[in-house]
Amino acid sequence: MNKSGAVLVLSGPSGAGKSSLLNEIINDIGECYFSISTTTRPLRGTEKDGVDYHFVSQEEFKQDIEDNHFLEYAFVHGNYYGTSVKPVRKALSEGKLILFDIDVQGNTAVNNRLGDITTSVFITPPTLSELKSRLAGRSTDSQEVMDARLKMAKREIQRVSEYDFLIINDDLQRAAGILRQIAITARMKTSMNEVNEFVQNWEDIEQ
Amino acid sequence: MNKSGAVLVLSGPSGAGKSSLLNEIINDIGECYFSISTTTRPLRGTEKDGVDYHFVSQEEFKQDIEDNHFLEYAFVHGNYYGTSVKPVRKALSEGKLILFDIDVQGNTAVNNRLGDITTSVFITPPTLSELKSRLAGRSTDSQEVMDARLKMAKREIQRVSEYDFLIINDDLQRAAGILRQIAITARMKTSMNEVNEFVQNWEDIEQ
Repeated sequence: MNKSGAVLVLSGPSGAGKSSLLNEIINDIGECYFSISTTTRPLRGTEKDGVDYHFVSQEEFKQDIEDNHFLEYAFVHGNYYGTSVKPVRKALSEGKLILFDIDVQGNTAVNNRLGDITTSVFITPPTLSELKSRLAGRSTDSQEVMDARLKMAKREIQRVSEYDFLIINDDLQRAAGILRQIAITARMKTSMNEVNEFVQNWEDIEQ
Repeated sequence: MNKSGAVLVLSGPSGAGKSSLLNEIINDIGECYFSISTTTRPLRGTEKDGVDYHFVSQEEFKQDIEDNHFLEYAFVHGNYYGTSVKPVRKALSEGKLILFDIDVQGNTAVNNRLGDITTSVFITPPTLSELKSRLAGRSTDSQEVMDARLKMAKREIQRVSEYDFLIINDDLQRAAGILRQIAITARMKTSMNEVNEFVQNWEDIEQ
């Protein structure tokens, strides 16, 4: 049986601590591919093109939509964000665990396409006021962007039940322990292709 | 947040090695409640009432169906099998991981009722001929029962894709390692009640 890869979706508001959590566990969870989103929003602070995002123009993005190059995409806070399908397919065929940092809409889209091999986790600060103070502590966002983020967080938290797991990030080490456990298990999900192949062989050998 | 329990469903043909696998991992996965099914089939070999099954008459079983006492039940190989809802509720409120050894129909029923906290695993021998020889090696089954088991296994294997995980039990230690990992993660699933409670508090604190 050819082992194929699997998918781990991480969602949650900016300020939930997703990056810090990933840094804590990334060396413990086997070979990963961190999906880099494509966006039309401007580069921020110390971000690098091709590392934090693929930064493209609205025209390029719209062309990619037309060419059906996105696994999922969304228009958020006045900018496009999307996931190209090609590197995802490649990483899956190499048996990697694909990590997605995407929003609730993105999770729905990924589950529609890759539901059998997808595990989804929503990560959140313990309270909205904690989220506010974490966002205020970052100097990269304008007040307007911060307000938009809080509004989005309030909307997204209503859809937490669509996720397989909820992690309340009140203690980094505790939360990292839970995420590590979930990530290692996520890889054990079997794709429909593998299941079909197994069922086929199971019966063939009987004759 | 009151931590509630979670559910791990184990399905797969008799002879898949479910009991042996559970024995391997039971000490590593925290506090569990092993759901004991109720059945109308006769006691077999060294089985004990209240340990392997609750053995009851057809009349008692039908009365319990009427009184809505079952989380799920099915009529298989001429006998009734079912899971009483009361001990399951109790174990959940105690935060335990509830282990179910039930068939594909049972898995559907449990997922309909407790889907948000349920992880399901299908365990199978690598091939049908391997299953045949394992069943033939047991002296407890008549040829008729064995044939019925094989027929059921062939039917159930077609529905493996309804499960979260497929474990091919070709090597006990390897399979036990996978099941251990899945069982520990299964406990981290959050019930809808917990999610709702969290969302409620998350917003309340803002005011």
